[in-house]
Amino acid sequence: MKTSKKNYQKLYELSKHIRTLQGIVYLLDWDQETYMPPDAAGIRAEQLKAMAGIIHREKTSRKFTAALTKLIDPKSGQVKAKDLLPAQIAALHEWRRDHLQDTSLPAAFVEEFAKVTSQGILAWRKAKQENAFHHFAPFLDRIITLNRQKADYLGYQDHPYDALLDQFEPNAKTQEVDQLFTRLRETLTPLIRKMAQQPVDDQFLFGKWDHAKQMAFGQKLLDAMGYDQNKGRLDLSAHPFSSSSHPTDSRITTRIHPTSLMSNILAVLHEGGHALYEMGLPQDFYGSPLGEARSLGVHESQSRWWETRIGLSRPFWQYFFPLLKETFKGQLDHVTLEDFYRAINKVKPAFIRIEADEVTYPIHIILRFELEKALIEGSLTVRDIPEAWNAKMEQYLCIIPHTPAEGCLQDIHWSMGAFGYFPTYTLGNLYAAHLFEGFAKEHPEWEQQVAAGKFDFIKLWLHEKVFQHGRRYTTQELLQQATGSAFTAEPYVRYLKQKYGTLYKF
Amino acid sequence: MKTSKKNYQKLYELSKHIRTLQGIVYLLDWDQETYMPPDAAGIRAEQLKAMAGIIHREKTSRKFTAALTKLIDPKSGQVKAKDLLPAQIAALHEWRRDHLQDTSLPAAFVEEFAKVTSQGILAWRKAKQENAFHHFAPFLDRIITLNRQKADYLGYQDHPYDALLDQFEPNAKTQEVDQLFTRLRETLTPLIRKMAQQPVDDQFLFGKWDHAKQMAFGQKLLDAMGYDQNKGRLDLSAHPFSSSSHPTDSRITTRIHPTSLMSNILAVLHEGGHALYEMGLPQDFYGSPLGEARSLGVHESQSRWWETRIGLSRPFWQYFFPLLKETFKGQLDHVTLEDFYRAINKVKPAFIRIEADEVTYPIHIILRFELEKALIEGSLTVRDIPEAWNAKMEQYLCIIPHTPAEGCLQDIHWSMGAFGYFPTYTLGNLYAAHLFEGFAKEHPEWEQQVAAGKFDFIKLWLHEKVFQHGRRYTTQELLQQATGSAFTAEPYVRYLKQKYGTLYKF
Repeated sequence: MKTSKKNYQKLYELSKHIRTLQGIVYLLDWDQETYMPPDAAGIRAEQLKAMAGIIHREKTSRKFTAALTKLIDPKSGQVKAKDLLPAQIAALHEWRRDHLQDTSLPAAFVEEFAKVTSQGILAWRKAKQENAFHHFAPFLDRIITLNRQKADYLGYQDHPYDALLDQFEPNAKTQEVDQLFTRLRETLTPLIRKMAQQPVDDQFLFGKWDHAKQMAFGQKLLDAMGYDQNKGRLDLSAHPFSSSSHPTDSRITTRIHPTSLMSNILAVLHEGGHALYEMGLPQDFYGSPLGEARSLGVHESQSRWWETRIGLSRPFWQYFFPLLKETFKGQLDHVTLEDFYRAINKVKPAFIRIEADEVTYPIHIILRFELEKALIEGSLTVRDIPEAWNAKMEQYLCIIPHTPAEGCLQDIHWSMGAFGYFPTYTLGNLYAAHLFEGFAKEHPEWEQQVAAGKFDFIKLWLHEKVFQHGRRYTTQELLQQATGSAFTAEPYVRYLKQKYGTLYKF
Repeated sequence: MKTSKKNYQKLYELSKHIRTLQGIVYLLDWDQETYMPPDAAGIRAEQLKAMAGIIHREKTSRKFTAALTKLIDPKSGQVKAKDLLPAQIAALHEWRRDHLQDTSLPAAFVEEFAKVTSQGILAWRKAKQENAFHHFAPFLDRIITLNRQKADYLGYQDHPYDALLDQFEPNAKTQEVDQLFTRLRETLTPLIRKMAQQPVDDQFLFGKWDHAKQMAFGQKLLDAMGYDQNKGRLDLSAHPFSSSSHPTDSRITTRIHPTSLMSNILAVLHEGGHALYEMGLPQDFYGSPLGEARSLGVHESQSRWWETRIGLSRPFWQYFFPLLKETFKGQLDHVTLEDFYRAINKVKPAFIRIEADEVTYPIHIILRFELEKALIEGSLTVRDIPEAWNAKMEQYLCIIPHTPAEGCLQDIHWSMGAFGYFPTYTLGNLYAAHLFEGFAKEHPEWEQQVAAGKFDFIKLWLHEKVFQHGRRYTTQELLQQATGSAFTAEPYVRYLKQKYGTLYKF
């Protein structure tokens, strides 16, 4: 018994050291996007490379492998340790999982991947700028080949895309995602068609919105969410993001569009949701899987929870709309709460994913997932992407991009080699909807509370059901335990149908 | 020949990697003092500890020692490499010097030193707060014993304090510093007595100074100095500092006192001077001693150059005073340039070093040097410090601190174990004065140029004489080459006598 505990402690210390170094990398990234002098980009790249090298060596060191192997067999996953707590056993399986991923790719492959994607990003930029897919196509071709190789290295049973998906969403399977997404797409596309025909006035959301007032309003939203300003901070960056070195250092950024009121508000709620999750992870387990976020999908469920389920809800604005009017005195005088609520929930098919509303957003993701899957399995060639993209846009959203820049070249992800990442965005919405049904069952009065400016109970519920567990349970287990029912797409379908059915009267 | 070049390159790569990691530490420190959320202090300490461990291991690794030993014998300093350039040979000697320091202290000693000084800082804080020297005394006693041991480990010929001094100011000798400081003290003390009797009105420097206007004026000063805002930035912190990861990332901070006009101005000029030096170090040699600042004393010569030799000069304010008046419209209307110049150069003995004027500042340093030397050689005991301190204050500045907090407890340095550090402050002034005579000889028209708002030639001169050389030459060689004459205290004595003789008419 004593030996297992000692061995566990040894592994934990090594893991914590790695996590601490990783936190430093997050600070380097954060600084790069916020305060770094522009000319320092070169040395920052060197610093990041140096840290990546150190972290990789630590993760794949003999020391680490030996410590892990004493407790669990890396190959079979059989636990050798005796008398550990169930949570510790769960941590061992997660450590093993990470270790297999960290050691499965040969160094030469990792270098080649880094080189090709680094060239790929430049090629993508040029292609997007010049609206010419052919600049990017040969690189994308190479990147897809490398991703297929990656899948082979990582290993899979049914579909090579499983291996890629699994990097970001552990245990997710292509076939299951396919079923969830198909259900969603088939429900949403006819609804979107109906809604697109009903014009909604949202002109009053555009105008001149004072920078300082926008920032101050963002801070108020964070306070309401229960974001602890002693453990984080709000800054500006070109693209909003959240970055957490530790539960006591969980920072976010936003962007201020001088003419668009909701841009900052939704960014703050979204990134604030990510940051709350990180702040809520158990500090006592910092550096072990029990102190880490479950998956990208679960992470996204937290950001979308605050951005859409709370931040786009009527009760939220029952409380905040008067404060918003007060903040921007004279600018929203003739706008009613109902006008405002309809405007921020306007559904309108458009080309650009990151500007999409709550209902069309999943369609953008589903489209990418379908293409990625086809590209990886070889049923679609790179050359045919623009055409396939536009065909799907027309089929699902009844619009056709005029240029590749507003079509298949709009996102950076493929050029970075991140195949398997996109689905986590919509899985996040599905998870959030599933969790929210559990939440609403336990808090049937949530709308009255929120309308009265009471928010604490939301964070508490999320803490109990999600934050405190780290990676203790699989995503499916976590969702099941939080709500008492198995995860399906139905809560999300119900939510969208109900909310938008009422708004658009269908 | 080829082998030496290859070996040199190998050593350089290892050194550059270490320098890159060191730059990350500087960012962690910078962030800690500027933007870090307060509750992150604990994890930041862990991050710094992790990096310190990695850097120490790299510096003392077998790999590094082997690479160095192929080129130069660490013991004798005999160069083995053939056909290297003179600059490369100079770099080898500096690498060897660093390596001897890095490897001379046993790990157990370093740990003990870190532990005792970490407790010492807490004890000093408490002692200062409660104005009770006895809280700190036992720790200081231990710290002095450890510093004596450190001197033994580092090695010295004449005086144990030589070894401590040498950590911060390579090749400086206690006896020489003693001579320089005695000359200075004996010149300054009678002058200070005379000046202290002449009241100078500086009341108009105090009042209400708008925060944003102070910041904007600071930026103007940096622009004038030639500080490249693409390679640095100006932020706020409790104590101003400069922090450089690389010539392209050399940041500074300032503090804004709402009631004291000169506080921010002098801080910006001082830290800007440090930062210009770092920005001017040759990028091509980044990571080798040829790309590093010569010494703390030479660094301080650069900050004091801009703060005192330029920033407290009449021509500087001939140009900037109208801009200052413009910035703070209505607040300095009745103040003449002459009034202003006299006020900012007011000499008045006071207890606190960091608030001292240009003439009394060296006396504060000399006092500390004399006490440090006596403590290290054992001719003064810790118990007697308060009395010895006050006696020297009375003897040199004719004032006696009322409490230990405004006497021997005012500075953090001793609690950190930094014996040998203080002298570099005044060596910096002496070096600056020596350099300035050379500069004025080459630019006899400097006052007209500065008065006309032309500053570029100053940075260019410093670049040619100081920045570009890194650690290529010893401090003495650098000073000799820059001016054509050997370094003495006389230029500084001449400068102070002439400037303050005119101001105070003696």
